[in-house]
Amino acid sequence: MKELNKYLKEIKPVDKNVAQEVQKRLDNQTKPLGSLGRLEELTRIMAMVQGTPEPAYEKKVIFTLAGDHGVVEEGVSAYPQSVTAQMVLNFVNGGAAVNVLARHAGADVVVVDMGVAEDIPGKGFINRKIDYGTKNFTKGPAMTREQAEKAICTGIELALDHDFDILATGDMGIGNTTPSSAIAALVTGLEVEQITGRGTGIDDEGLKKKIAAIKRGIEVNKPDPKDAIDILYKVGGYEIGGIAGLIIGSAIKRKLAVVDGFISTAGAIIASLLHPEIKDYYVLSHLSAENGHDKISEYLGKKPILDLNLRLGEGTGAALAMEIIDAAMHLYYEMATFDQAGVDKKIE
Amino acid sequence: MKELNKYLKEIKPVDKNVAQEVQKRLDNQTKPLGSLGRLEELTRIMAMVQGTPEPAYEKKVIFTLAGDHGVVEEGVSAYPQSVTAQMVLNFVNGGAAVNVLARHAGADVVVVDMGVAEDIPGKGFINRKIDYGTKNFTKGPAMTREQAEKAICTGIELALDHDFDILATGDMGIGNTTPSSAIAALVTGLEVEQITGRGTGIDDEGLKKKIAAIKRGIEVNKPDPKDAIDILYKVGGYEIGGIAGLIIGSAIKRKLAVVDGFISTAGAIIASLLHPEIKDYYVLSHLSAENGHDKISEYLGKKPILDLNLRLGEGTGAALAMEIIDAAMHLYYEMATFDQAGVDKKIE
Repeated sequence: MKELNKYLKEIKPVDKNVAQEVQKRLDNQTKPLGSLGRLEELTRIMAMVQGTPEPAYEKKVIFTLAGDHGVVEEGVSAYPQSVTAQMVLNFVNGGAAVNVLARHAGADVVVVDMGVAEDIPGKGFINRKIDYGTKNFTKGPAMTREQAEKAICTGIELALDHDFDILATGDMGIGNTTPSSAIAALVTGLEVEQITGRGTGIDDEGLKKKIAAIKRGIEVNKPDPKDAIDILYKVGGYEIGGIAGLIIGSAIKRKLAVVDGFISTAGAIIASLLHPEIKDYYVLSHLSAENGHDKISEYLGKKPILDLNLRLGEGTGAALAMEIIDAAMHLYYEMATFDQAGVDKKIE
Repeated sequence: MKELNKYLKEIKPVDKNVAQEVQKRLDNQTKPLGSLGRLEELTRIMAMVQGTPEPAYEKKVIFTLAGDHGVVEEGVSAYPQSVTAQMVLNFVNGGAAVNVLARHAGADVVVVDMGVAEDIPGKGFINRKIDYGTKNFTKGPAMTREQAEKAICTGIELALDHDFDILATGDMGIGNTTPSSAIAALVTGLEVEQITGRGTGIDDEGLKKKIAAIKRGIEVNKPDPKDAIDILYKVGGYEIGGIAGLIIGSAIKRKLAVVDGFISTAGAIIASLLHPEIKDYYVLSHLSAENGHDKISEYLGKKPILDLNLRLGEGTGAALAMEIIDAAMHLYYEMATFDQAGVDKKIE
């Protein structure tokens, strides 16, 4: 924990003063005041996070973190566990959805094995395997407290070791909506049923099993809802801890983190619990189709940028939101002012 | 009307059968079934509109149509009428928001003077001026019936004369939320107050004047809510008629029209009233921040793709939505299948 605490001390508040200067510039551009809505908001956020009215935005990296989950034994997923490792190879080969969308957004994809249940052959990904999948949390903690801290620190170090102007989180892990719902239920105080969905597509029977498994996991382990590490080690996952770390690392670097969907939001919950300033360093990219993501977003005080009924993960929603942020930055840097264009201003 | 009727006869239904073939292909790609949500829906729409499981998507054109409105005499806008012509020059010079977003989306911008109140010097735009602005519709019809038909036919011809795989509509015209609200009120049957907003940013006093002007316009002219041309000539605008024509022209060419915000939606209402099949040929790009756009979208049975609190027009929301559609098409053409990637399928 000493190492994590050291990292957390490096987080400074965002520079809220810079927002005014940015808005003044936006208000001089040839459009009705405030008419670019959330694009203007995203521009202010980019500037506040970086602490400058001239934020950089070109270098984009999506981190897709993979991990397996012992709780799949309970029949909580529609796909076999083998898919996690297979999809890592798909990412490496550029054939997955996140690869396509990253190319579209001009972003790099960094694939990381945080805790896949098997050894993955070949290159093209980073091996930071903490263990061969988590344990089944209906029978005890998913990992040790040390492993949870290591997962977060690994995420922080991944962010610190890479160069970017904007970071996106992503996940791959069969069964990982189950720990995500458990984390969300503990921290938000919402009922498990309100924030548990069908993940990759389980039927009614599977959904019942999933809800029961989450409740049993909470009952058996009794995590302290105020203690992020306690929650993460008892009912979390390695990739979720890694995502929390990515967001913290991004905040240390004063760069915006674009949080993908349901699983990444669970990572954001953990990160937010660890440091009060974290919430200003990330945006939610999209409203997931997964049941309850709207309620969790509301709890975090965040309105997702997109609402496209996605429920894929990997960083796909974050990749799309990065394009919207990129568009906002282009507007900020390229639009003409009223004076430049010889356009009359508002009637006073 | 003879010419317009001739055009309308060229519209065929979309090919709904092709959707199944597209979905089958999407379902073979390495992702949980249906997990790309609206991106999959947009892919099916592109295919149905073009009548092929291999729709083209690369060539993108945004038409930004400009026109002035006599009703500005009633104090319905926060900006002087001079801004319409000035903004046309800003479009030509590439400094407006739509230019930036078009470059970002890889789209061309075609600027058209449909009825600006003054002569615009220089080149770089298409002159199809039908008149020097509409008349003040609180005192009689905004234009003649012939001019309304001409506006629509001009839009159709603009679409037919250009080469594109996907078209976006856009508008510029000080005061043009006023006729748009009038059109929407007539066709949807909603109260004027429910679907009239602050446009470019009028105050409470201005909003009262605007609502009164719309009500007077409807009272004085008594448009037939079932007759699109009657509505357009009595309380419409040249650019709104042109936008209706663009959507019709796009349908004739079997290409998708991406409808921008509040004013373009008024054009879509007119187009939809003229032909029952039109509704399958367009999507609403974004939910405008303008009051009542949600209700109008619901009336049209369309869920806008984006919700970014925009209220600028020009084609800005449509440009952003084009990027989402482009991303959907890239996924469709580039993602690996389960077989190609060696990924296991769902547990049956």
